Order: sequence, then structure tokens, then C-alpha cells
Amino acid sequence: MGPHPAVAAIRLAVRRVLHDILTDLNDPTDRDGAAPLVLVACSGGADSMALASALSFEAPKLGVRAGGVTVDHGLQVGSDLRAAEVVSRMTALRLDPVESVAVRVGRDGGPEAAARDARYAALDEAADRLGAVAVLLGHTRDDQAETVLLGLARGSGIRSLSGMAEVSGGTGRSHRYRRPFLHIDRQTARKACMVQSLPVWDDPHNADPAYTRSRLRHEGLPALEKALGKGVVEALARTAQLSRDDADALDAWAADAETRVRDEDGRLECAKLYALPPAVRRRVLRRAVVAAGSPAGSLFARHIEEVDRLITGWRGQGAINLPGRVEAQRQGGRLVIRQG
Amino acid sequence: MGPHPAVAAIRLAVRRVLHDILTDLNDPTDRDGAAPLVLVACSGGADSMALASALSFEAPKLGVRAGGVTVDHGLQVGSDLRAAEVVSRMTALRLDPVESVAVRVGRDGGPEAAARDARYAALDEAADRLGAVAVLLGHTRDDQAETVLLGLARGSGIRSLSGMAEVSGGTGRSHRYRRPFLHIDRQTARKACMVQSLPVWDDPHNADPAYTRSRLRHEGLPALEKALGKGVVEALARTAQLSRDDADALDAWAADAETRVRDEDGRLECAKLYALPPAVRRRVLRRAVVAAGSPAGSLFARHIEEVDRLITGWRGQGAINLPGRVEAQRQGGRLVIRQG
Repeated sequence: MGPHPAVAAIRLAVRRVLHDILTDLNDPTDRDGAAPLVLVACSGGADSMALASALSFEAPKLGVRAGGVTVDHGLQVGSDLRAAEVVSRMTALRLDPVESVAVRVGRDGGPEAAARDARYAALDEAADRLGAVAVLLGHTRDDQAETVLLGLARGSGIRSLSGMAEVSGGTGRSHRYRRPFLHIDRQTARKACMVQSLPVWDDPHNADPAYTRSRLRHEGLPALEKALGKGVVEALARTAQLSRDDADALDAWAADAETRVRDEDGRLECAKLYALPPAVRRRVLRRAVVAAGSPAGSLFARHIEEVDRLITGWRGQGAINLPGRVEAQRQGGRLVIRQG
Repeated sequence: MGPHPAVAAIRLAVRRVLHDILTDLNDPTDRDGAAPLVLVACSGGADSMALASALSFEAPKLGVRAGGVTVDHGLQVGSDLRAAEVVSRMTALRLDPVESVAVRVGRDGGPEAAARDARYAALDEAADRLGAVAVLLGHTRDDQAETVLLGLARGSGIRSLSGMAEVSGGTGRSHRYRRPFLHIDRQTARKACMVQSLPVWDDPHNADPAYTRSRLRHEGLPALEKALGKGVVEALARTAQLSRDDADALDAWAADAETRVRDEDGRLECAKLYALPPAVRRRVLRRAVVAAGSPAGSLFARHIEEVDRLITGWRGQGAINLPGRVEAQRQGGRLVIRQG
């Protein structure tokens, strides 16, 4: 008799990702003779406990060492005790090495963004120090759906609809983070923990209505499912993948187009910009404004639209002020974008 | 003292669209000597009554004749009386000609789609018969937000996120339909009716939970606003515009790429397809499958993904069956797509 279907599903997902990781390593045995180390980032919640259990099961069969890291955000009383408990649960799963890393969460960008920044910095540091080839993250299809809706609320285009990537970089390596569960739903992860008798911890933040994501999870998404049907989560996750590919293709087009719309002095020619499709032109303009020193995070669609009107709705407008003291103006058929 | 801000807003929106319509007509006076006729499609609800009032106010100032059509869907007892009442309200707004058109709603595609198909067929017919240069539709920013969410629930990519176009075609003319209120919120239209003492009719379908759009309006979207903030409707409407431009650009790329990935006999070369960005390759494949006779409406992302694996994950798979008895198979480095 094989494992429970939920356990089979999470193991298959992890096995596939381990295969990808080993394929990406040119020669997995040629690393000081040791087997490559893959870490799981584990909060003790159902998603990451399921991930830890699957990694522990699959890694030895592929000659991979499995370790685990839990991050103590220090945001709740007793978080250190809880981190120690997660360490002992990972040890019980025979992960090795296993450690807890305490971080200090700042305030930049709001509580959720600050906690995330601190967490990834700690995971990067641990991966570097332990020499791990990859860090697995337990984000599920439900998390992905929530991320797409959060991006939708920004209204800043398809890049923000593309959610989380299956593979993404940390500060150290471009393919460091892997998300094996992006096609697995939260219920499957929970079920896999239950049938394996794994104790799980429910993060109180996940139910705290002060957090946007929590409100979305407990009120927004269920209401949307009620109106649109149960397939919404899957549809959102598929939208993420399609949007990511579309955004990548358009970014590549814009990078290529940018080289062709500049004159010999490197200035942007308005006539050539005008001939581009609007979606490509706006991306070229955005690249140019960021290159001139405007911080990408402060640059909104309405800024780029205003610059675009220098090309498509020219009626002698003056210079346009953009974030980061960057100015855009049209001069003699050229678009001049520079920091003041 | 000028008009109430809500009235000023709806009039400005209509004035801009009338300008666009006149610009698109090469010579507006050269139409049998008569002023061009613009129709409003009016259900008697607040959105289209506001639109009718603004058209009636702005059209004469621009030398445009303003008329109105209401469609009697025959779905409720007394709908004919209601249509007659809407006709008299449009006449009171000094629209001329004004008429009611009765339609028979079929069942294809569900109640909402069937009603929509019947409505547009009737509007097309009336526009042709009356010689109208354009038909104005009262869809607001809120309608647009709902349409984006309905598209999101399909999970079929950014084209389905692009909502309704500001300008779109009927069967007769490519620029027949105009939506002046896509940037106006429903509340503004309602307010404009109120301050102008215009009676409005609330369509009971709009509050009927049997309709997906109605559930979205009364439950889904309010819950999403509660979770994500009041800017959601605006963000969704902006997403529609950005997605539409992106989808247009990628479609143009795919149309261009398709000519370059065919060999001299017109067959698709797998190696050249492989070199395209995934987003472009999938669009090329979709075009080819539709051209081979697969009905676009039955062709889902998963079908195209399966065809794509003949290119990106080739391991000797057999022919793939697609809707409309179309088959795709790989033969000697070529992709052969044909109807069986």
C-alpha cells in the first residue's frame, strides 16, 4: 500500500524540484566530495512542515543532504521558545543541519514587507554559511492566489499579477529559492501533516485582520469563491504563470527596442518611440526613467503615462517631474530624461 | 454657477467621445447633408439615463443628432410597458429618433451571454437602419472592474483580464460602440441622475444572486474592497487597460513571428518555435490551431500547453487531439496541425 494521496502529492512535488536542482548543478558530486545540501525554510506551520517531511523523505534517495532553518522574527512573546520547538520538530524529521536564526524586524514598507525582508536576509545568510545549493519555501497555490490579488490591487500591470516564481534568487545565487508547492493547495499540505501525525503550528498573524493578506485569506477570497465558483484559486495561480511569461516577453522586447530608438548620441528619438506598440513604448520609457535614477518602487503607471504623453499627445508641455528628482522633457524631437 | 460636479463629469466624458467620433469621420457634414446621428443604448437604469442626459446636452453643441434605443429583452412580465416608459423618458430628454426594439433571448452560453448577444444584434440592426455613426454604452468603471474579475476567474491569461474596450466593433462597423463612462464610477452616474431629477429604473437582474455578475457586485467586490481597500475598483480598471495593451502587443508579435517560423512549405519548424519566448510561442501555436479549425472558444490554456510540450518537452509523444477534431503532431522536426 502506497502513501496517502496527499503525502504522495507533496513528495512528488519535492522530488521534481530536487531533480531540477541536481540538473542545474553541473556535477553534484564535485562539491568537496560532499553531497549537496538543500534547506527547507520552516515556520512550523502546516505548509512548511509538510515540505520538511517530504524533503526528509526524498533527499536521501537522490544523494542530497536535507537541512532546515526556522526564522525567529521576535514579534511575539515566546517566539524564541517556539523557534526551539520547530528546531526539535525538524530534528525529529532527521533533517541535519537544523537551526533557528533570530532576526530583528525593521519597519520599512509596513509590517509584512519588513518581516519578509528580515526573513530572506536571514535565509540568505544561513544558506551561504551552511553552503546550501537551494532553499525550499512552502508557499502553496492558495498563497499564490492571494499574492495575485494583492498585485491586482496595485493596478500596476501584469508584472504585479505574476505572483511568486517557482525559482527565484536570493542575494547570493540567482536560483537559490524554490517553491515546490505552488501547484499544491493548502488543504493537501494540511492533510499530509495530519496523516503523518506531524504537529503543526498556526501562526496567529495568519488570522490577524490587521494584516492585508489575512483579510484576503479569510474574507476576500472566500467571498470571491462564493461569487465566481471554487475554481478561482486555480484560475488565479494560472493567471500568475501566464502573466509572468507575458511580462518576461514584453520586458525582453522593450530591452531590445530601447537600443533601436536611440540616436547616435544615445538620446531617445520621439518618432521611433511613437512607432512602438504602447505596451512596449511604456516599458522603454520606464526603463529609461529608472536608468536616470528614479527609484523603481516609487514610479507608478500614472508617471509613465505622463511621460508617454510627451510622445503621443505633444502640445508643447513643459518638463515632467518624476520621483528621485528625475525630469523628462521633449527637446527637438528627442526625449531628454535626467536627474536634476 | 456651473453644473453639479457629477453632471460636469458625465458631460465631459461624453464630449470627449463625441470629439473622437467626429475626428474619425472624415467629413462630418458630408453625409447627405445631415448631421451625424449618435445613439445611446438606454436600459432606463442610472448609468444609461445619465449617459442619455449628457448626450442630449452635448450633441447639439457639436452639430450631432442624438437618438436613443432601448432593448426589450422580454424576460420579465411587463417588460414591454417598461420599454415604452424608457422611450418616453428618452423623448423627454429631447432625443430623436427614439425607439424600443423587442428581442427574443436564446439560451446559448447561459442567460447573461444569451441576453448580451440578443442585445447587441438588436443594437447593430437599429444602428444600421437609422444610419447612426456610433452607439454609446453606459458601462462604468465598476462594470469594468467586475468584467476583469470575471475574466480572472477564467484563468486564461491577460486577454481575458482586459475587460471592455472604450471603442469596439459591432457587426457593421469596427468603431461602432463607444463606452464614455469606463472611467466614471457608478456612484457619479447615479448622483448625476439624482441632481437632474431623472427617474431611474433598477434592473431586478442586477440584484439577482442567480447571476454571477450580480453576486460579484453585491458580495465579491465589496469583500475584496474590505480586504484590500477602496482603490480596488480603480486598480482593476487600470489593470484592464494595461492588459489590453500588453495583449495587443503580444498578439502582434505572434502574428509576425508566425511568418518567420514556417519553412518554405508553410510548415512550423520546431527549432524556430523553441527559440521564441514561451509567451509568444504559445500564441503562435494557438493561432495555428485555430487556423486549422479548432473553435477558439473551446481551446483552453491546457490544450496549448500540451501542444507546447511537443516543442519544449519532446520525448516521442503521439498526436494530440484538440477541439474541433484538430490533431497536432511532431514529424521530422516539423509541427503538423490539421483537422482529422
